[in-house]
Amino acid sequence: MVKASPVSPFAPETLACLPAIDGVAFATAEAGIRYKKRTDLLLAVFDEGTTVGGVLTQSKTASAPVLTCRKHLKKGGARALVVNSGNANAFTGQKGRDAVEITVAHAAEAVSCKPQEVFVASTGVIGEPLDATKFAGLLAELAERVESDAFEVAARAIMTTDTYPKLASRMALIGDTEVRINGFCKGAGMIAPDMATMLCFIFTDAAISAEALQDLVAQHAALTFNCTTVDGDTSTSDTCLMFATGRAEARGQKPVGKAKSKKLQAFSEALGELMRDLAIQVAKDGEGISKFVTFEVEGAESWHAARKIALACANSLILKTAIAGEDPNWGRVVMAVGKAGEAADRDKLAIWFGPHCVARDGERAEDYDEKTVARYMRDRELTIRVDVGVGRASATVWTCDLTHGYVSINADYRS
Amino acid sequence: MVKASPVSPFAPETLACLPAIDGVAFATAEAGIRYKKRTDLLLAVFDEGTTVGGVLTQSKTASAPVLTCRKHLKKGGARALVVNSGNANAFTGQKGRDAVEITVAHAAEAVSCKPQEVFVASTGVIGEPLDATKFAGLLAELAERVESDAFEVAARAIMTTDTYPKLASRMALIGDTEVRINGFCKGAGMIAPDMATMLCFIFTDAAISAEALQDLVAQHAALTFNCTTVDGDTSTSDTCLMFATGRAEARGQKPVGKAKSKKLQAFSEALGELMRDLAIQVAKDGEGISKFVTFEVEGAESWHAARKIALACANSLILKTAIAGEDPNWGRVVMAVGKAGEAADRDKLAIWFGPHCVARDGERAEDYDEKTVARYMRDRELTIRVDVGVGRASATVWTCDLTHGYVSINADYRS
Repeated sequence: MVKASPVSPFAPETLACLPAIDGVAFATAEAGIRYKKRTDLLLAVFDEGTTVGGVLTQSKTASAPVLTCRKHLKKGGARALVVNSGNANAFTGQKGRDAVEITVAHAAEAVSCKPQEVFVASTGVIGEPLDATKFAGLLAELAERVESDAFEVAARAIMTTDTYPKLASRMALIGDTEVRINGFCKGAGMIAPDMATMLCFIFTDAAISAEALQDLVAQHAALTFNCTTVDGDTSTSDTCLMFATGRAEARGQKPVGKAKSKKLQAFSEALGELMRDLAIQVAKDGEGISKFVTFEVEGAESWHAARKIALACANSLILKTAIAGEDPNWGRVVMAVGKAGEAADRDKLAIWFGPHCVARDGERAEDYDEKTVARYMRDRELTIRVDVGVGRASATVWTCDLTHGYVSINADYRS
Repeated sequence: MVKASPVSPFAPETLACLPAIDGVAFATAEAGIRYKKRTDLLLAVFDEGTTVGGVLTQSKTASAPVLTCRKHLKKGGARALVVNSGNANAFTGQKGRDAVEITVAHAAEAVSCKPQEVFVASTGVIGEPLDATKFAGLLAELAERVESDAFEVAARAIMTTDTYPKLASRMALIGDTEVRINGFCKGAGMIAPDMATMLCFIFTDAAISAEALQDLVAQHAALTFNCTTVDGDTSTSDTCLMFATGRAEARGQKPVGKAKSKKLQAFSEALGELMRDLAIQVAKDGEGISKFVTFEVEGAESWHAARKIALACANSLILKTAIAGEDPNWGRVVMAVGKAGEAADRDKLAIWFGPHCVARDGERAEDYDEKTVARYMRDRELTIRVDVGVGRASATVWTCDLTHGYVSINADYRS
């Protein structure tokens, strides 16, 4: 049996340090939902006036917590977030809905807010009933000991097959006021988010309306999380929520209502960077990863077409395994472009592995040197670029290779 | 390094025996295109008056031979088929088109027919220029020593990563005349045919118009080859051609012009069976296979929706690896149904692993017994059935699990 390495070779040497954000505090507990001797329950508490926006999985079999978040997002206000790992509370029928209701009720009582201001997320095994009575009772106690300086602790409580917590932080100016954006997320397998991804939570002290948050998160999720894939499998639980406490208003920030406001330009850029940072961290913790791969598709008819072609490459088993084997098998890139179904001119197609052009004008490049490209394939981080020769649009997708480690992890996840 | 088993555990103990078909003869050669010490070149020769129909890959980067077949199919007549293995002649630009032209010219001369009556197919590595001068000169000699009793020999010459040749034969009545249908195909990886599949060649002595052949092959390909998948990867070279020599006319069969003719009903059924037989043989030789899996989706809005959901299951890495690990992780079936994007009622979903109902009405079945289902998972052949609860349409898809063997084979194919 080939075991996956216990920690991704791309795990950061030091974790990003996330400073506290005014109006956000966390507490975690070992609720024993599935894992032993580790935290698996997270409570985040937000100051009054916190707005929320987010995107959720498009799966037709979305989990009970996802449906609740979708409903509560319409109200736009948030005071608490409860996340558990170890059980996804997906495909759990009435029991699942009951579990969410119990959790929401306990959290609302613990932080003295309306149920609709509580957000919930669960990650782990699908189809196992989740016994919320096991942990809902802990929420009152957690609410009493929340700490603002606990982002890493929070990120660790929501991990499943992740080999490291994924954290990122950025600063931005809104007007003359510096605001902070922190985020963390989890995810390592079942990663091909459709709309949002995995679990991702982002926090800021900026004063921004729920509507603007919603627009910003959706816009950047499309270009970041929705452009990552580990195995092409979309989770039932993908949830990306962003909370804005508005506490920067006290430091002079004027509240912003619309995502398109010029005042939010720098903020939006910083948020996009943060989300790309987290998305790449997810791909770099892809189950069994040995190579991190960036696919850049250009010359496509539209961004959607370019993204679809890049995802066809990034999800091709036969190409991902070739990459794992350090085989510069660019013919499989040709195959993946062909199967994507989007417009591509076979006879203008050009392909680069890193700096090396391996094919142009629809055939092997004249100066192609297999040895040189094979040497490039030994790099840990690879970029494969394809020009499909029909337009001017481009897209970038991040992924990992497919190794024996992936098979080992997933052939033996539940048992 | 985990090696794939040298022969699929599903290889038939004895190969189907294919009797000669009047008007069809084969010869093979060791042309040394890529492989050593094995045949890699096939010439099939057909009697005058042979009709042809077929379906070809929908890949946007289809190979040069595919484009030539597409053109020649419009004429509807066939006298020769040339197939090589070891090189797909795909993404080879003008050199690739030249190689096809040389091959067609030599074959036409060797069997004294028009170029448009020659069909060509190539399978193997993509992107390597194919030097047709290496083997085109052999065709004249091959044409002189063709034999009718050589289906297995022919099937072996077109294999690539196949671990056994795939052969099938059926009889059918057209009116009172018994006619024969023989077929063989190759394929083990890069299998998710879109329209046709891999390489498949079918032969009959029936007298049937090219138009009717075309319709019959397309109709059955949809339900057979296009319902198999090994890795979700569509080849640049998928080709399925059927040749009808019409020699049964001498035994009293009245030629048939239309696929819908009642006279072809039994023939069509036999052809459908033969194609399903071959399609299943392909899935059973899936690279690295340890389990053969049938996904049956019912209760869908349409056959297309049911097929898409079944393929989403059959192509899910995380589900295929769970099956390899004999883990009855039916939550991953829920995930795959959800990501397919087709209508499904989460709260009516029901799932069976073999005879065991594991979920109904959107949650785990009350009488679910993990031990019983885990025992079922040890079977070599598994059937997973899903009722998605929104309609009456159904579809069946055949696949294999995803094992360390697949990774080993594909991480090291070219080098």
